[in-house]
Amino acid sequence: MAEPELDQDSALLAVELSEVCGTDVYLQQGRLQGVPYPLVPGHVSVGRLSKIRGTLLDVEGREFREGDRVTFLDVHRTCNACWYCLVAKATTRCPNRKVYGITYGLDDGLCGGWAEQIYLKPGTRCIRLDADAETFMAGGCALPTALHAVERGEIAIGDTVLVLGCGPVGVNAIMLALMRGALKVLCIGAPAFRLAAATQAGAAAVLNFEEHDEHARLEWVLEHTSGRGAEVTIEATGAPDAVVQAMRFTRDAGRVVIVGQYTDHGPVSTEAAFNPHLDLNKKHLDVRGCWGSDFSHFYRSARIVSDPVRSAPWAAFRTQLSRYKLAQANEALAAVASGSVLKALIDPNG
Amino acid sequence: MAEPELDQDSALLAVELSEVCGTDVYLQQGRLQGVPYPLVPGHVSVGRLSKIRGTLLDVEGREFREGDRVTFLDVHRTCNACWYCLVAKATTRCPNRKVYGITYGLDDGLCGGWAEQIYLKPGTRCIRLDADAETFMAGGCALPTALHAVERGEIAIGDTVLVLGCGPVGVNAIMLALMRGALKVLCIGAPAFRLAAATQAGAAAVLNFEEHDEHARLEWVLEHTSGRGAEVTIEATGAPDAVVQAMRFTRDAGRVVIVGQYTDHGPVSTEAAFNPHLDLNKKHLDVRGCWGSDFSHFYRSARIVSDPVRSAPWAAFRTQLSRYKLAQANEALAAVASGSVLKALIDPNG
Amino acid sequence: MAEPELDQDSALLAVELSEVCGTDVYLQQGRLQGVPYPLVPGHVSVGRLSKIRGTLLDVEGREFREGDRVTFLDVHRTCNACWYCLVAKATTRCPNRKVYGITYGLDDGLCGGWAEQIYLKPGTRCIRLDADAETFMAGGCALPTALHAVERGEIAIGDTVLVLGCGPVGVNAIMLALMRGALKVLCIGAPAFRLAAATQAGAAAVLNFEEHDEHARLEWVLEHTSGRGAEVTIEATGAPDAVVQAMRFTRDAGRVVIVGQYTDHGPVSTEAAFNPHLDLNKKHLDVRGCWGSDFSHFYRSARIVSDPVRSAPWAAFRTQLSRYKLAQANEALAAVASGSVLKALIDPNG
Amino acid sequence: MAEPELDQDSALLAVELSEVCGTDVYLQQGRLQGVPYPLVPGHVSVGRLSKIRGTLLDVEGREFREGDRVTFLDVHRTCNACWYCLVAKATTRCPNRKVYGITYGLDDGLCGGWAEQIYLKPGTRCIRLDADAETFMAGGCALPTALHAVERGEIAIGDTVLVLGCGPVGVNAIMLALMRGALKVLCIGAPAFRLAAATQAGAAAVLNFEEHDEHARLEWVLEHTSGRGAEVTIEATGAPDAVVQAMRFTRDAGRVVIVGQYTDHGPVSTEAAFNPHLDLNKKHLDVRGCWGSDFSHFYRSARIVSDPVRSAPWAAFRTQLSRYKLAQANEALAAVASGSVLKALIDPNG
Repeated sequence: MAEPELDQDSALLAVELSEVCGTDVYLQQGRLQGVPYPLVPGHVSVGRLSKIRGTLLDVEGREFREGDRVTFLDVHRTCNACWYCLVAKATTRCPNRKVYGITYGLDDGLCGGWAEQIYLKPGTRCIRLDADAETFMAGGCALPTALHAVERGEIAIGDTVLVLGCGPVGVNAIMLALMRGALKVLCIGAPAFRLAAATQAGAAAVLNFEEHDEHARLEWVLEHTSGRGAEVTIEATGAPDAVVQAMRFTRDAGRVVIVGQYTDHGPVSTEAAFNPHLDLNKKHLDVRGCWGSDFSHFYRSARIVSDPVRSAPWAAFRTQLSRYKLAQANEALAAVASGSVLKALIDPNG
Repeated sequence: MAEPELDQDSALLAVELSEVCGTDVYLQQGRLQGVPYPLVPGHVSVGRLSKIRGTLLDVEGREFREGDRVTFLDVHRTCNACWYCLVAKATTRCPNRKVYGITYGLDDGLCGGWAEQIYLKPGTRCIRLDADAETFMAGGCALPTALHAVERGEIAIGDTVLVLGCGPVGVNAIMLALMRGALKVLCIGAPAFRLAAATQAGAAAVLNFEEHDEHARLEWVLEHTSGRGAEVTIEATGAPDAVVQAMRFTRDAGRVVIVGQYTDHGPVSTEAAFNPHLDLNKKHLDVRGCWGSDFSHFYRSARIVSDPVRSAPWAAFRTQLSRYKLAQANEALAAVASGSVLKALIDPNG
Repeated sequence: MAEPELDQDSALLAVELSEVCGTDVYLQQGRLQGVPYPLVPGHVSVGRLSKIRGTLLDVEGREFREGDRVTFLDVHRTCNACWYCLVAKATTRCPNRKVYGITYGLDDGLCGGWAEQIYLKPGTRCIRLDADAETFMAGGCALPTALHAVERGEIAIGDTVLVLGCGPVGVNAIMLALMRGALKVLCIGAPAFRLAAATQAGAAAVLNFEEHDEHARLEWVLEHTSGRGAEVTIEATGAPDAVVQAMRFTRDAGRVVIVGQYTDHGPVSTEAAFNPHLDLNKKHLDVRGCWGSDFSHFYRSARIVSDPVRSAPWAAFRTQLSRYKLAQANEALAAVASGSVLKALIDPNG
Repeated sequence: MAEPELDQDSALLAVELSEVCGTDVYLQQGRLQGVPYPLVPGHVSVGRLSKIRGTLLDVEGREFREGDRVTFLDVHRTCNACWYCLVAKATTRCPNRKVYGITYGLDDGLCGGWAEQIYLKPGTRCIRLDADAETFMAGGCALPTALHAVERGEIAIGDTVLVLGCGPVGVNAIMLALMRGALKVLCIGAPAFRLAAATQAGAAAVLNFEEHDEHARLEWVLEHTSGRGAEVTIEATGAPDAVVQAMRFTRDAGRVVIVGQYTDHGPVSTEAAFNPHLDLNKKHLDVRGCWGSDFSHFYRSARIVSDPVRSAPWAAFRTQLSRYKLAQANEALAAVASGSVLKALIDPNG
């Protein structure tokens, strides 16, 4: 595509790295709503501002310069004018929001990250990045998502936290639960190499769900929690039945955050036998859906990976990223779909 | 039974009125756990202290006198020594608690309200009552239960609240949601005479669920909520599928309180098709189980019905209570089971 | 002034009534910061849209029509782009916000309410009003301010609330504390006719502070609160020393909301003897500043006064408003400054 | 003293180490209320159960055995029967609580830690300790106090936290603020060797308040916080004026926790010029007193120092503790009073 004419107070980003995540697989499979195909995928990217027209400010009022390394919030046009924005203050449910690489199509311009350049429209929220591109991408979009989930979980210092799933969101949730004060984090997931990543991220104990049925999993959780269940469980699996199991693995009056159900995988199965008396009411549970993330999660994530001390857990994963050229995008998608890599990235300059 | 020997700092209560509630029906049906049959039912009662041995203090340190009208928290022996009491601060999940009229049996003494006298063991929490017995009973055990639910719902001034169910908990939830600042309260329930009670309690609009399927109910809720759903939904039905409907009837990022699932009615049906993506995650909902109530709920309830101004909504229901003699207990249970009365009371002096 | 050229998506409001409040007195006295004198005062107004250019939507996406009765949030240009808006989510501290009638001057156009017309710039948040203008003005700007304060106070059903001050914010705080579930509300203020308004608003007991020193006030509060102090105290006085007294009049582990300190009246006096050990730390208090209000408070306020049932407490004050013609603005200011009227309004058509 | 006759379900603790803290200095100076002199000081201790009569259970229901290493909550007899315990749920303000080593006197038996043995009365809450005695004492009573303060501060992941004071509570607050997710922690205190401890605890930057006046301190905080002030400030100094400075050093809409005012040091000075408009209302601050700590804080603290991973920051301070024999208690008190040691301990077997 040709370089676009820049609107006032907009910019071009020369992409260094762009992420390939589970959402991109769903996008390819046509499982997301409101997608204006065709489009350029890639919603979370890092790069350098190659051209600025007008003025671009960060949230602290400092002006960006060409050459600055930035990332940007993929969510755009949260309207600040609708009932969800202004009354409910639930901006992730604003009906007017657009997402780069997902709900912006080709007609909207260069709005996806799997490209050499991205057009940052006026009002796009850029964040200065002091981290190297790889450390940022070790978190990727999973970091703000997990941050939102951990925030919703209201973990108290000394809690035992259970994470279901060890994909990118699960692994980031482990790191963040520890950063937030969990005494220890347990993780149930698969396959083995991802559980190894969970352990590297700091999980005190991991269990392969492919080798243990629900009953065995529950026993394992109870063994690690004085027979009570986890204080906080973060579901990051994508499997509907895991939502019910998350409730069962949590102690009475605990909190369950549901963050793994991005896409419609259908209803909970009859086998799961969700019983509101036993699983929810009598347990006095809090079950909290967690949709999307907002600027604050993205900003805090960028600050963490930019901090020389706090970024350590992510920096340690830098060498475990799988890089693909633009021409290898389908290969990258296949790797993510099959779960054979921890994290796939598009390097348009590769 | 013979009058018991009183332990130090215990008392006898001469019962004026004792409640017959849904829990008593389940008790009769053998559907509750941990019940030491045979027992005297009746967990919420009002009466006068007929005999005190030693000293009985209220929470403000004032000594009770024989002749005082009191009620007492049916939950006894919350231990203040276990993990749930001291670390989780979730005292309704204390494993050591006992409940008068439910988990105290005949061997424990005169521990049920459907009797002329109740033995108030040491440590029983009594509350002075300035209300007449009928106004107190217009709330009964449903008032603190609904108060707990409304508290969990964190209603904001100006919210639209939906109550599912118009049994005693539902009707009390309507009154309390208004007292807490709801702009208006909607109610879906049945039969017609209970919906009339919901209207009397202040519901702005009611819908008979027997005459409207789930789709029609959703349409009705959306019509009354600018197309968004209720800010807060309180489920007080007893039907497992209503838990899923409660989520669907609630606006994105709203709160759902599940308080109606006291007993095991089995799992959510396949027809309900609970879909965690659509019903929970994408909606960014908070779903909150609500089990039991603690002293604070009981105390605040007693203060409300004792207040000349605040008690008005309950006082208005005084004339709609159905009184039964001790010998008519089975008749009272049948009336509650069939839903043919708003509220049944045992009057041991009747 | 000449009728302005309207920008795209802006409008003209034909003013019915505009408020004269304490802030206007401070404005006149030059005690506010950031005021671009000369200006047209009047920050909260109600009227009819007399001319619309382009499209004006409410938060629910419905288009406004010429002739609609509306009010509008006086705060404009909350930026949705700065750290306070996006990270802290403390939009009342956004440094970019402008306020009609206060920080918009004559150079900005017809931006004050004491006029026949107001120019509603693009992005001004209008709210449809089903109430008559007088009922809305019985609340005026004090209603959303008090709503914010009551929200910050997290009143629980059954609490005893103390309001310091019986100016417009204090009187509205009484009504809203009751709407939010307070068992009873106490009020300390002066002079007598305003205390009568507090009683009309629902205060269970009032005390004239001019006739009782701090010690007597404390005794009075303790008498009405079983010797503990209020659960929640809302300071709405403007007197710095009242902030310390508010702490002393509140029970241990209670909440104190400071909403009455809009303007710099200097430091707490030496006589007040603010002792952090006795007044704050040992009492385990929460003391909460409350600055401004946001769209949600304004919107909820408009819904309350537009509701046939909920508006009753405000409608009852309709007849106690003092109306002034445009030419009598100084007279209105003098009346507010001296506290001789409950509420002064400018009627530009009077 | 003679070994006491043990009541049923009580025990004797053979003390290994007992703490000397600032409270003990105030105790010696006669600055605390409700102290029944003479008494044995020492409120936080660690040791082994040397004799048990009857049954002693931990919160998880496991029986203690003679020889177990334990600590115990110094607060005893929180009544679970008064308004503060049951309605306000503010157990640190229960009027019936007693504190070992502070409000238990000689007449109450062996109730202080600066002794070879402590009599653990029935109902004393013991906690099993897997940590060595020194690691536990590196936290001491300051750890649960700081944990309570950090909890009250509601630190979010990525926040910048300011700690005023670098005594034991300040140093523990630094470690816990980081454990709770602070991006970085700043500390203002003195003298230099304590600031070095703050740095060792993880503070990103420290400032000596003896060398910088209030203006310079504010400038320093603003420099480290993008000109806004800290998100959360924890005051742990003991100086009344620091309470006002804490507000000024905090960003608008931030949180201030006041935990350093254990004793009456008189009112805030006139020089401090506490201005409620500028310092509190306009800043939309939350200022939170923090009194005492409860079992949950003590339990979580014991779990942290017992955890092989999480205890690391405290284990690193083990070598910096100053041990004194029983006969050197006055020497220990003098060292604490003069601030010449980081932490003083009584070793009754030394």
